Amino acid sequence: MEEGQRCTSYFFVIKGCLRLFFTDDKGVEHTLQLALENWWMTDIDAFRSERQSGYTIQALETTEVLVITDRNYELILAKLPVMEKYFRLIYERAYAASLSRIRMISRMPKDEFYDLFRTKYPAFMQRVPQKILASFLGFTPEYLSELRKRK
Amino acid sequence: MEEGQRCTSYFFVIKGCLRLFFTDDKGVEHTLQLALENWWMTDIDAFRSERQSGYTIQALETTEVLVITDRNYELILAKLPVMEKYFRLIYERAYAASLSRIRMISRMPKDEFYDLFRTKYPAFMQRVPQKILASFLGFTPEYLSELRKRK
Repeated sequence: MEEGQRCTSYFFVIKGCLRLFFTDDKGVEHTLQLALENWWMTDIDAFRSERQSGYTIQALETTEVLVITDRNYELILAKLPVMEKYFRLIYERAYAASLSRIRMISRMPKDEFYDLFRTKYPAFMQRVPQKILASFLGFTPEYLSELRKRK
Repeated sequence: MEEGQRCTSYFFVIKGCLRLFFTDDKGVEHTLQLALENWWMTDIDAFRSERQSGYTIQALETTEVLVITDRNYELILAKLPVMEKYFRLIYERAYAASLSRIRMISRMPKDEFYDLFRTKYPAFMQRVPQKILASFLGFTPEYLSELRKRK
């Protein structure tokens, strides 16, 4: 998925790792989300409102995904009531996780945030490149490498 | 709802305004969410996992709410399939909004964030006390008042 193109795809990771990022005015890439196996990823706002994506999605490893289009997403929800429950649970959790992330990036001391993140998501620590991990955590790569050495 | 108590209530605002906040080690209150008419509010993570709330919910005006308990929330979803669709849509939007908030608080220059927020949510600007609005936006009250004068 490319920033600026109409967002019609919703990805489900079978195997591998995706990241969702945007590029600011200065050309710096900012990673907002990461997805490992069994996670969904898209620019949900653009996907649901048939607008251009504000983000790019990139594979960080050789990645296998399932893709559903916006039309088929509507169709599957209309035809299979169990999918309403499935996506209600997916969003409920995604929403809860994003609120806890807002709390963390807003207020938590950086090293506490780092400890919590590596406890909660050890797979990310091993599989995501340092530079991208730093961008996701809101750290400079130098600060992340310093933290890693210290812990 | 009080921080530290078991979270069993989910609020729907009929009339009025709620805020969700936590108090840090230094006694400073941080506002994470605001809810006007027709919005839902709870500590969704604690509500769904039957844990203690990490937040307090407070009414900022004389507020009328509907309350659903965790048990009845499960019941209504099991009994009425249309409620799965209803909450799927509620969370889909809430999730999209929280991602856009993460993008804004992480990276956007403060005055751009302020402009976007007041354009998108003019009701909050009028109804929420300055101090709480500043805390929600991640500004000091002084900086918010300076921005207001400048615009």
